[in-house]
Amino acid sequence: MDEHAASWHGEGKGVVLLSGGLDSTLVAKMAVQELGRKNVTALTLYYGQKHEIELEAASDVAEFLGIEHIIRELPPIFGGTTSTLVQGGPKNPEGSYASIAESKGVSPTYVPFRNGNLLSAATAVALGLEASWLYYGAHAEDARNWAYPDCTPEFNGAMANAIYVGSYGKVRLITPLQNLEKWEIAQKSFEYGSPMHLTYSCYNGREQHCGTCPTCVARIQAFAKAGMTDPVRYEIPIDWGKLIEDFKY
Amino acid sequence: MDEHAASWHGEGKGVVLLSGGLDSTLVAKMAVQELGRKNVTALTLYYGQKHEIELEAASDVAEFLGIEHIIRELPPIFGGTTSTLVQGGPKNPEGSYASIAESKGVSPTYVPFRNGNLLSAATAVALGLEASWLYYGAHAEDARNWAYPDCTPEFNGAMANAIYVGSYGKVRLITPLQNLEKWEIAQKSFEYGSPMHLTYSCYNGREQHCGTCPTCVARIQAFAKAGMTDPVRYEIPIDWGKLIEDFKY
Repeated sequence: MDEHAASWHGEGKGVVLLSGGLDSTLVAKMAVQELGRKNVTALTLYYGQKHEIELEAASDVAEFLGIEHIIRELPPIFGGTTSTLVQGGPKNPEGSYASIAESKGVSPTYVPFRNGNLLSAATAVALGLEASWLYYGAHAEDARNWAYPDCTPEFNGAMANAIYVGSYGKVRLITPLQNLEKWEIAQKSFEYGSPMHLTYSCYNGREQHCGTCPTCVARIQAFAKAGMTDPVRYEIPIDWGKLIEDFKY
Repeated sequence: MDEHAASWHGEGKGVVLLSGGLDSTLVAKMAVQELGRKNVTALTLYYGQKHEIELEAASDVAEFLGIEHIIRELPPIFGGTTSTLVQGGPKNPEGSYASIAESKGVSPTYVPFRNGNLLSAATAVALGLEASWLYYGAHAEDARNWAYPDCTPEFNGAMANAIYVGSYGKVRLITPLQNLEKWEIAQKSFEYGSPMHLTYSCYNGREQHCGTCPTCVARIQAFAKAGMTDPVRYEIPIDWGKLIEDFKY
């Protein structure tokens, strides 16, 4: 039922782009299941994110899964941007992604061609490690309405081609979540036994999830729609029973 | 007769990936002709190349063309590689590209997924500058026999798609040399009045071109085949008359 049958790419080594969020953590767990933990390397690329807590979450996840973890820094090319996600940028928006999307145009959290840079750097690392597979957790909800154009299947496909051709056919891009909604990712995280409790998604970078920023709202809704409670802690009280009921019909 | 008629993309701003070599210098000159020098920014990305003389050549070219010049550093992700082109790597090969290609497989001068990283970083910069066009000098001779797979039209096309989709349709990749041989680039450099005399191609990084490394050999042959002499200085004597005669038939 998974998008990639383990049988055809269950050999060789893999690199997983791991942010420490729910999506990439699931992908790391999938990679471990397909290739074995000794053949998987998690790669976290720091590009001036506002908080270190994401890096800690990524390290915790890698340790839990028993896989090698590489942390590398990208150049300060993103520094002068208008994205709210990088240091020196404006304040993060509140409310749901839907309300942000209504404002049209470029998402305030869009980091210029971020995923092109992440995937290109990861390909170089994969080549250095002689890894055949590059796992990457782009999903359908980020791609919807072109909120993040560098999460769309069209972008993924183009990069998959560029990576395959440009690496002498040595590295192939694997995007097992690209047609999944966030609630399906929550569901699959449960099925795969992904260490959800160690993940971190909040834009605000405090120890507990704020529960009100766009990623927190999306995360809470995803778990509720999947009929589950989220194992991470929130700063605000969350009535999971009511939320799950709301999504029932 | 040019691959891109100036009329359709003669508006807006452009970023040119400029190494200071013959190819990217011609592309910079083309961009200036199409967009006007005030709308063109040269971008030189340093990624641990062995010598600073390339950066100087790029600066000289940008100054000659009267365009803004940005120099940025890429992360040390390429550092641990086996490429002869980066600091700490092995010694450069001698002889022609053809003799190197005979050894098959990965070129000793291949830097892992270099052009994917250069183009991704350049797209981020282009978005920051609100540039619509990203000019890039990949050519047919580097692509031949898959010597550099990240110079092939297939790679360029995939990256063009990824860049266009991933930038909200704001940036498009322009590769005016992708079907040209090196000798045609020499010829076009003359036609366009490109500042060939300021360019630098040699792998060895000394003040004059060595005349024996693969790029020098390719450069000399290109000029001879185009029926021209190269305006840069070489450490060894070159009998241009004889070389030009050799290529005549």
